[in-house]
Amino acid sequence: MIQYNPRSWFSLIFDVYSRYVIKLLFPLLLFVGVFTLLLCFLVIDVFNLHYGGTIAFHSILGVILGLFLVLRTNTAYDRWWEGRKLWGQLVNDSRQIAIKVDAFLPKEATEDREYFRRMIPNAAFAIKEHLRDSILIGEMDTINDEIKNRIIKSKHRPNMVNRLLYDRVMKCMKEGTITAEQLFILDKELKGFTDIVGACERIKSTPIPYSYSMFIKKFLFIYAITLPVSFMWDFGYWTVFIVMLAFYFLVSIELISEEIEDPFGTDINDLPLNEIALKIKRNVSEILHD
Amino acid sequence: MIQYNPRSWFSLIFDVYSRYVIKLLFPLLLFVGVFTLLLCFLVIDVFNLHYGGTIAFHSILGVILGLFLVLRTNTAYDRWWEGRKLWGQLVNDSRQIAIKVDAFLPKEATEDREYFRRMIPNAAFAIKEHLRDSILIGEMDTINDEIKNRIIKSKHRPNMVNRLLYDRVMKCMKEGTITAEQLFILDKELKGFTDIVGACERIKSTPIPYSYSMFIKKFLFIYAITLPVSFMWDFGYWTVFIVMLAFYFLVSIELISEEIEDPFGTDINDLPLNEIALKIKRNVSEILHD
Amino acid sequence: MIQYNPRSWFSLIFDVYSRYVIKLLFPLLLFVGVFTLLLCFLVIDVFNLHYGGTIAFHSILGVILGLFLVLRTNTAYDRWWEGRKLWGQLVNDSRQIAIKVDAFLPKEATEDREYFRRMIPNAAFAIKEHLRDSILIGEMDTINDEIKNRIIKSKHRPNMVNRLLYDRVMKCMKEGTITAEQLFILDKELKGFTDIVGACERIKSTPIPYSYSMFIKKFLFIYAITLPVSFMWDFGYWTVFIVMLAFYFLVSIELISEEIEDPFGTDINDLPLNEIALKIKRNVSEILHD
Amino acid sequence: MIQYNPRSWFSLIFDVYSRYVIKLLFPLLLFVGVFTLLLCFLVIDVFNLHYGGTIAFHSILGVILGLFLVLRTNTAYDRWWEGRKLWGQLVNDSRQIAIKVDAFLPKEATEDREYFRRMIPNAAFAIKEHLRDSILIGEMDTINDEIKNRIIKSKHRPNMVNRLLYDRVMKCMKEGTITAEQLFILDKELKGFTDIVGACERIKSTPIPYSYSMFIKKFLFIYAITLPVSFMWDFGYWTVFIVMLAFYFLVSIELISEEIEDPFGTDINDLPLNEIALKIKRNVSEILHD
Amino acid sequence: MIQYNPRSWFSLIFDVYSRYVIKLLFPLLLFVGVFTLLLCFLVIDVFNLHYGGTIAFHSILGVILGLFLVLRTNTAYDRWWEGRKLWGQLVNDSRQIAIKVDAFLPKEATEDREYFRRMIPNAAFAIKEHLRDSILIGEMDTINDEIKNRIIKSKHRPNMVNRLLYDRVMKCMKEGTITAEQLFILDKELKGFTDIVGACERIKSTPIPYSYSMFIKKFLFIYAITLPVSFMWDFGYWTVFIVMLAFYFLVSIELISEEIEDPFGTDINDLPLNEIALKIKRNVSEILHD
Repeated sequence: MIQYNPRSWFSLIFDVYSRYVIKLLFPLLLFVGVFTLLLCFLVIDVFNLHYGGTIAFHSILGVILGLFLVLRTNTAYDRWWEGRKLWGQLVNDSRQIAIKVDAFLPKEATEDREYFRRMIPNAAFAIKEHLRDSILIGEMDTINDEIKNRIIKSKHRPNMVNRLLYDRVMKCMKEGTITAEQLFILDKELKGFTDIVGACERIKSTPIPYSYSMFIKKFLFIYAITLPVSFMWDFGYWTVFIVMLAFYFLVSIELISEEIEDPFGTDINDLPLNEIALKIKRNVSEILHD
Repeated sequence: MIQYNPRSWFSLIFDVYSRYVIKLLFPLLLFVGVFTLLLCFLVIDVFNLHYGGTIAFHSILGVILGLFLVLRTNTAYDRWWEGRKLWGQLVNDSRQIAIKVDAFLPKEATEDREYFRRMIPNAAFAIKEHLRDSILIGEMDTINDEIKNRIIKSKHRPNMVNRLLYDRVMKCMKEGTITAEQLFILDKELKGFTDIVGACERIKSTPIPYSYSMFIKKFLFIYAITLPVSFMWDFGYWTVFIVMLAFYFLVSIELISEEIEDPFGTDINDLPLNEIALKIKRNVSEILHD
Repeated sequence: MIQYNPRSWFSLIFDVYSRYVIKLLFPLLLFVGVFTLLLCFLVIDVFNLHYGGTIAFHSILGVILGLFLVLRTNTAYDRWWEGRKLWGQLVNDSRQIAIKVDAFLPKEATEDREYFRRMIPNAAFAIKEHLRDSILIGEMDTINDEIKNRIIKSKHRPNMVNRLLYDRVMKCMKEGTITAEQLFILDKELKGFTDIVGACERIKSTPIPYSYSMFIKKFLFIYAITLPVSFMWDFGYWTVFIVMLAFYFLVSIELISEEIEDPFGTDINDLPLNEIALKIKRNVSEILHD
Repeated sequence: MIQYNPRSWFSLIFDVYSRYVIKLLFPLLLFVGVFTLLLCFLVIDVFNLHYGGTIAFHSILGVILGLFLVLRTNTAYDRWWEGRKLWGQLVNDSRQIAIKVDAFLPKEATEDREYFRRMIPNAAFAIKEHLRDSILIGEMDTINDEIKNRIIKSKHRPNMVNRLLYDRVMKCMKEGTITAEQLFILDKELKGFTDIVGACERIKSTPIPYSYSMFIKKFLFIYAITLPVSFMWDFGYWTVFIVMLAFYFLVSIELISEEIEDPFGTDINDLPLNEIALKIKRNVSEILHD
Repeated sequence: MIQYNPRSWFSLIFDVYSRYVIKLLFPLLLFVGVFTLLLCFLVIDVFNLHYGGTIAFHSILGVILGLFLVLRTNTAYDRWWEGRKLWGQLVNDSRQIAIKVDAFLPKEATEDREYFRRMIPNAAFAIKEHLRDSILIGEMDTINDEIKNRIIKSKHRPNMVNRLLYDRVMKCMKEGTITAEQLFILDKELKGFTDIVGACERIKSTPIPYSYSMFIKKFLFIYAITLPVSFMWDFGYWTVFIVMLAFYFLVSIELISEEIEDPFGTDINDLPLNEIALKIKRNVSEILHD
């Protein structure tokens, strides 16, 4: 995620888009511009037609299309925000487990404390890499070779980290350093880890329904292709500029939606997963250290 | 569910709709087109009427109709997304039960572990077939003939799978391999199964209210039938094209809504229940195996 | 609730409204039609006025009114859907109690099992009749005369059924067939019953705020009454038809909202409480029988 | 809250507003009317200006303003509905505590039962008076002088009632009539009381943000003041009527929002707190009596 | 937060904006005004161009832009309201812990009671300062030097206060004044503290996505820059006034959104964190004192 000041209007107005948006926006814009130019040329200079058309038709459709796009952006934003909430909850749950483990374990259980201090942040790193289809485990603190091997061999690493935490809690319980009631209390956050992984996977693997996505693009395309027909009688060659401007605004809304609805990548709009994971590590370390 | 790349604009613009949409869209479109053509012919060539009508009336109604349709699409999408969330929760709950059972059961309880490894994924398969009004149990791993018979004879199979899981947990509890506190912890996810089944049934069995659905279709129909009256004075025979285009956009929104609001079938927009169920099986197997 | 196929466009377009809508819609429509006719007659044929009015004013107000009505419909739909969710939760909770009671009770406790099998579905019947201000208990299975009398004498029957369930659970607990931890687990669903009753009562007893409802009707009325003034200069006697059509659409939205916002009656849009209650009975019977 | 029939259109259309709305609406309406009249007089009769203005500008702004106001109304309604939900939850929690206490306490604990029967409804009365900044305790059943004094002296009475309930539960627990697990179960609803009080206080003490409220009023005012400039060229003195009508609709939306966003007072739109509190008293009495 | 009367229309209409809004609004407004003036001068007086443009194009875009801005404001408001809810929950949790500690601890545990009375409100003060990037601890009641030092040295003070509370609860548990079940009950609110801190941090550290924010400002800017082209043919120099007015309304919506979406500062729209923290202190003191 790019760090930016939402209040510096000047830089935001003249800043460039992300590579993704530019890569799609410019060819589309160019296509619509050239198409409109050709149409104007044919109608005005070649066939020399005249027609007193009105733009009321595109006016109605424009409002409906705009409504559609704006609500679609809202949906995309909701997904982005849900992703952010899930990672916020991951921070909370990690801290909370650390606070509880610290309070529950007796003073002399330094080894267990050490284990949790190093293992809890691994959940965040494992989820992050899992969501990015990465197999790197360099950021994890794998404690010893046995655990490292279990993590590497595992096909679903967030599950494995969760299991390693559960196993240790059960071990403490058997040794009597954690009671049955305390297991119950710890379960809330451990369960939270699984829920967070599953919800992030859901957001990542489920784009908006196929028909929906297809329809928006068809609507946008047909609207842009027919727009010159309404405008060129009144505006002549200015129509090229007007159609491009309208198309630019409408397509941008759709492109931004596409970009933010999948928030776990490494685009400039994506969530700062690295920073959050490191923050979790810092917080857990502080709690279980001193 | 069709796998598609939401970012490949070209293919999406020229891709065809689902069979369902096409089967309804084309007859409706044809009807409206022929009707408008006839009306234009009668007014322009037969009776040769002239009238300086304005389209302000259909402009206002068009915006209201568009608003109505867009919000109705949002409602349909919410149902689709709720369905997806429920199946995401099913993944979470299945994993979580597996992780907990693995942590709670002693090492030597291989038979119980095996039972849960094979039975937990059956919940997903049972719910899937139940939602599709199917009686197939081929994908289930029914362990032995007694269990198989109980599942086959059961009228509500997801309930039966849930009971089989509960019964086994109670058996373990009586044998002392699971404690009362652990039952309590497991109950969260077992309860989750029942809630997920019920919520999916609710979405499946409850279309939007009858009056609502009827009104949208009446509104759309009357709007399309009266639209030529506003346009034909200015646009002549072009009205046929304009009315068909407007009708195409408006009806498409309604048809897409109808398609996505019932997300558990096997249409291209429906949720990938098969894939999710298999994923649950893979995840649970891995957790309860090694 | 009427069973209908949301995809059969033809029948839905030509189907008639519910009695409620018709009873209100036609007099209002007639009044507006006659009023507009009179106004047109006076202005055009009696006083023979001419005026180059524009309809921009009613255009702006129409969009705002439409927005208002569409959002109000959304609110009404949310209530309807919340009612459906509550009854879906009632299904889940009833099933879940049955599954748990079946798992917790020892095999030989046939009498307790029988009691729960017959008593759990009574919750649904009691809530249904309570929401319909009915005092019928014919659908309930009242087990014996003492219980029947307690239910009949009770002023709030859903509460009484809930108490009868609680009392029996406590009895089992005292006899040692249910443990304290199991009571805790059962409490989730028993508590659910009370929450469902209360939430249904809330929906039933709370229409939208008085000022809100009054304002919508005033807005609609004044809008319809002044609409002819904008249209008649351009459209002459056609104004009668146009105003009636606009009024028909706008009033229908409001009437449908009124109909669906109170979803527990026996109108065609109301929820199928009878079917759901019977489904609960079937499900619970199957779980606690074999 | 006024009891009204949302379906009696006639009376609602001709009913008068609440005093609050009238007190603000009429002066504002009068001011805008006189201002427009003066402007028309100056422009038309004094300076005799002519100008071919269009109303497109106020058309765009009008839609944006309308959108703003309608969404603001939705926000206000959400607060009102949240307030209603909280009081519905208070009903549920009160009933549920009564049902549980009745089930948990042994038959012979008549004094404890009596205590809860009289004390539980006090929570509702205490919250109601607290939300209305009242210090009356006449509706409470204060049992004995010691408790009465504690309540009177308390600065936050809902907290005090909650404490009195907690203390009694603890007393029962120490005497062994309530077990530790049962305390746990009762805690859910006792905790609910505190959450309800806090949430009601939040709604009461937090109007919408200052800038937001200020901007809406500025927008409305400037819109109304500049509206005649667009209309008077076409409509002459009729502008006075048109501007007043538009202003009436727009200001009414804002006034209704203001009225319903603070739902705990004694206005006609406010929630029926008295009725709900009495209903709680009746329900709890019935449960803990027979 | 400024204390204001939402119903005093007069003062709100003529009140000035916050410094933040004014600082950004006026330069932008001036720039647009001067730009439009120049353009008008060039077109009308220098080049003396004539053109029969229509404003339909800016009409469509204006509605879409308005829709975008209004929904963006709604999003900002949701964040503000979520922040308010979190602090409301902090009030509830603080009160609830105090009530429970008071009920659970035996009468003679005056020291523990004193500890909680002084420590619980520190959570609110710590969160407040943490959210304002402040290191002041003057408002906290740090009990003794050891605790003071731990808080000062801590990098994440809300976590530290939470730990100090947990540690004391564990101490009481070891001494037998609090039971395992009571720990469980207290855990709900202690966990609540961590969730509240994390959620507030999330709101504070996550502005709306970069592309989204950038696009809105680009859209607004291009819209304002091209607006004169549509208006000046009809309105001449009045265009300067009209463009400035439209720009004023549109930019204000965006500026207000920016201001309220970060609700934990000390602006006039920000939440009254100081007042809430002091209220918590008063409430907790009263509960744990008498």
